[in-house]
Amino acid sequence: MTDRRLEFIQIAEKYKPKMQIETVRPLNGVPTKALKDGDSVIFDFGNHYVGHVKLCLSSVGSHQDAPAFIKVKFCEAERELNEDSSNYQGWISKGWIQEEWIHADVLPTVLELPRRYAFRYVKVEVLAVSGKYSLVIDSVEADTITSAQENGLATCEGLTDMEKRIDEVAIRTLRNCMQDVFEDGPKRDRRLWIGDLRLQALANYATFGQNDLVKRCLYLFAGTADENDRVRSCLFTEPEIEGDDTYMFDYSLFFIDTLLSYYKETKDIETVLDLYDTATRQLEIAKEYFDEKHVMKDSDVLGWCFLDWNLGLNKQAGAQAVYIYSEKAMIELAHIVLEHGSENVSIQDIESMKTDVANKICAAREHLFDETKCLFVSGENKQVSYAANAWAVLAGIWDDEKNAEILAALEKETNAEMMVTPYMHHHYVEALLSCGEKEKAYKHMTSYWGGMIENGADTFYELYNPENPFESPYGSSIVNSYCHAWSCTPTYLMRMCGLTEGNLS
Amino acid sequence: MTDRRLEFIQIAEKYKPKMQIETVRPLNGVPTKALKDGDSVIFDFGNHYVGHVKLCLSSVGSHQDAPAFIKVKFCEAERELNEDSSNYQGWISKGWIQEEWIHADVLPTVLELPRRYAFRYVKVEVLAVSGKYSLVIDSVEADTITSAQENGLATCEGLTDMEKRIDEVAIRTLRNCMQDVFEDGPKRDRRLWIGDLRLQALANYATFGQNDLVKRCLYLFAGTADENDRVRSCLFTEPEIEGDDTYMFDYSLFFIDTLLSYYKETKDIETVLDLYDTATRQLEIAKEYFDEKHVMKDSDVLGWCFLDWNLGLNKQAGAQAVYIYSEKAMIELAHIVLEHGSENVSIQDIESMKTDVANKICAAREHLFDETKCLFVSGENKQVSYAANAWAVLAGIWDDEKNAEILAALEKETNAEMMVTPYMHHHYVEALLSCGEKEKAYKHMTSYWGGMIENGADTFYELYNPENPFESPYGSSIVNSYCHAWSCTPTYLMRMCGLTEGNLS
Repeated sequence: MTDRRLEFIQIAEKYKPKMQIETVRPLNGVPTKALKDGDSVIFDFGNHYVGHVKLCLSSVGSHQDAPAFIKVKFCEAERELNEDSSNYQGWISKGWIQEEWIHADVLPTVLELPRRYAFRYVKVEVLAVSGKYSLVIDSVEADTITSAQENGLATCEGLTDMEKRIDEVAIRTLRNCMQDVFEDGPKRDRRLWIGDLRLQALANYATFGQNDLVKRCLYLFAGTADENDRVRSCLFTEPEIEGDDTYMFDYSLFFIDTLLSYYKETKDIETVLDLYDTATRQLEIAKEYFDEKHVMKDSDVLGWCFLDWNLGLNKQAGAQAVYIYSEKAMIELAHIVLEHGSENVSIQDIESMKTDVANKICAAREHLFDETKCLFVSGENKQVSYAANAWAVLAGIWDDEKNAEILAALEKETNAEMMVTPYMHHHYVEALLSCGEKEKAYKHMTSYWGGMIENGADTFYELYNPENPFESPYGSSIVNSYCHAWSCTPTYLMRMCGLTEGNLS
Repeated sequence: MTDRRLEFIQIAEKYKPKMQIETVRPLNGVPTKALKDGDSVIFDFGNHYVGHVKLCLSSVGSHQDAPAFIKVKFCEAERELNEDSSNYQGWISKGWIQEEWIHADVLPTVLELPRRYAFRYVKVEVLAVSGKYSLVIDSVEADTITSAQENGLATCEGLTDMEKRIDEVAIRTLRNCMQDVFEDGPKRDRRLWIGDLRLQALANYATFGQNDLVKRCLYLFAGTADENDRVRSCLFTEPEIEGDDTYMFDYSLFFIDTLLSYYKETKDIETVLDLYDTATRQLEIAKEYFDEKHVMKDSDVLGWCFLDWNLGLNKQAGAQAVYIYSEKAMIELAHIVLEHGSENVSIQDIESMKTDVANKICAAREHLFDETKCLFVSGENKQVSYAANAWAVLAGIWDDEKNAEILAALEKETNAEMMVTPYMHHHYVEALLSCGEKEKAYKHMTSYWGGMIENGADTFYELYNPENPFESPYGSSIVNSYCHAWSCTPTYLMRMCGLTEGNLS
């Protein structure tokens, strides 16, 4: 297999998307005022954009007799405008904060900032001019960039006004994350994560339909798999394509489901045949995490399995469920491959997977399910969580009826570990949908994603807690990402899963 | 005359110097250590340079997963390394502080900083990397820039070791200020001032002999004179050639002496003929500053006349002396022009100037001289200052014998306003020399400029008070300029005026 990785990368590079550039200008124009030390101006572009910003600066008064020194800050959310990076003590890199300190020796000048930013607001603060001249901002514009092609966007009829707005914001989120790959967030981390990719692909099928970008990303993950052919959690494309050295149990497995969904959408059997072995390998590697009773071994290693951005969450039961979910997808893939005459799989392989999935299901029912509570429990402390139970429902460990009971019990359970990310909320909504709880699913979707809109979102966030809208797991919300791919799924839920008011009755 | 200004600029542009680029590297090489948040490295280039710096950066550890954020600081003097710009409250622009904040999104990268800096030390401080990687500085180099041509540098025999060192540092100061024009300081203000030009030209005659650069600067001043043909104190060459809107009594007059010295060195009569009217005009304008008794009217306007960077200095007597000094130079110029058959001047004009200079001398003796003290006094409060008396000596208001007495009296006067700048110290040394006090002149030169060397100077400073070496008139020494043209004159004093130990006896 290892020899094929280079080939996979080459195929991925063939599907490098063409970037769409559009120049935009702030809604509020430019100030007529000449600026002195301490003055600042906020430019509001009216929506979330990703791109390169250009400032035309000049001076009034006497000839510029000292360098102009300015700070330029890029904010996705209005809140960021008042956050002070000098106080940042969070645990992820301060380097993510989008601000620059710039000296202009000679005015007039055109400052073409070389870096790409994600922003709606641009704040320019004058740190120093001199007593003899003032700074003038003649114009501000941005060359926005995305690989999403607006003219390929599928229309969607029959949405209510609120649904339309959710759909728009979801699509904008997806669009601004569609760059050279499906990025997780254009502010941060600006790279391809498989957990995000899986959901972005679904939203893309419902909207832009740029399936070659999904294909590219699948080949990139296969091409950067490690020496054991394990798919990494994320990968970098610059300066060269390289996989990250982090692995997460669920993320590696999601390669399978992402490939399956891609096939269902595109019927591109060639890609499935190319990447089938990589998919199989993820299941084989995951198998080693189980004990002899087919129960997932628990782990204290931080981030061994993701599920949600909740440091208190025990991952055992959720991981068992994701495995089952993924093995079922693998079986589907195996059937597809077999039908196309591949020698990579046999009926025996499929039977063996079916036996394995039954074993894992039985083990989950026997060892991870609390009959009294009608809930899955996880880890030594029998933790109840939305993550584990939603995934158990999605994995179909029980039937739809019981799954509905589980989700009802979950709602009543006051000690349940809650969800932190739109990513997990998406899976919860899918779980509700999967067992027929369409109304609850709809209500949850509209209140959660609608809540972000009420909170002023132009794009959906990486993290959103309705009780504390700007909560951050990083020690400061200044590094939060307010346009984050994994939150773009309402467009998929409404367009592909029929989760609209019109479809409720 | 106004029509000729454009022509003067065009001539100046013909003499735009060719820049000399040389690549240099720090003495201490690059650190082998990988850098984390808070780490910093100081690169010592071993001498003062002006130029563009290039940093090659890479990473070790996992793949770079967040932008590297660094601060790069450029220091002329070691002292600046520990000065914190965030505390700067001085009254000139903070924009002069040579530091940059830079994000590197993709490593490895070559950071070619676009601005020009004046420095010996470059400090790189890591503000943020991430837990997963460290920053590595693979190399640091600078493309240094000057218009001084090293191979044209005149040698000078017979200097003592200390004199050699003073000569070297003076030449380095001159060299690093020789750019597209004679700049005052390559850190600050990076522009052409006539007070500096006059002294730089002298030092240049003694060393590099790049007389076309002097010519260029003379034409620039004439070409940027205002609608009354008054020469401005300084001018800018970027984005286009433009005179500043400041005027100083002495600076405008120094156009005359600078032109005369240029002629004496070059015998370039064409330039003198071109610029003669501009020179005449400066005297005519200055004439208006006198009252009917031929005494300079005093003024409270800050900076109306420069003399020295001393806010407590009264300028009346010094201005009277500079006028006399300049009118004498004008008379010399008039003779030269007359000899070359110019119709711009007549014997009558010269006679009229001679009468005027005699009137100004008499008035100075009568109204500005305190016979009891044997010192010139200035302003309402009869202030005694080194500036006024040194200029009175240079102007030859009395004869050499009395001038020597004046300078002796000055030494003993405990209330005299002292000198602040090497610029004024130069004039004091010249004053001592002019009246035969060669030994005192030599002692003053070696102790003052030698003191800067003992203080660690690689180039001579804008300001130097031996009692308080890092004194600043700006509210903080962080904006002081440590390579400042007007302090480059010891090479002139030693080479052209014979001010060396070997010449004392």
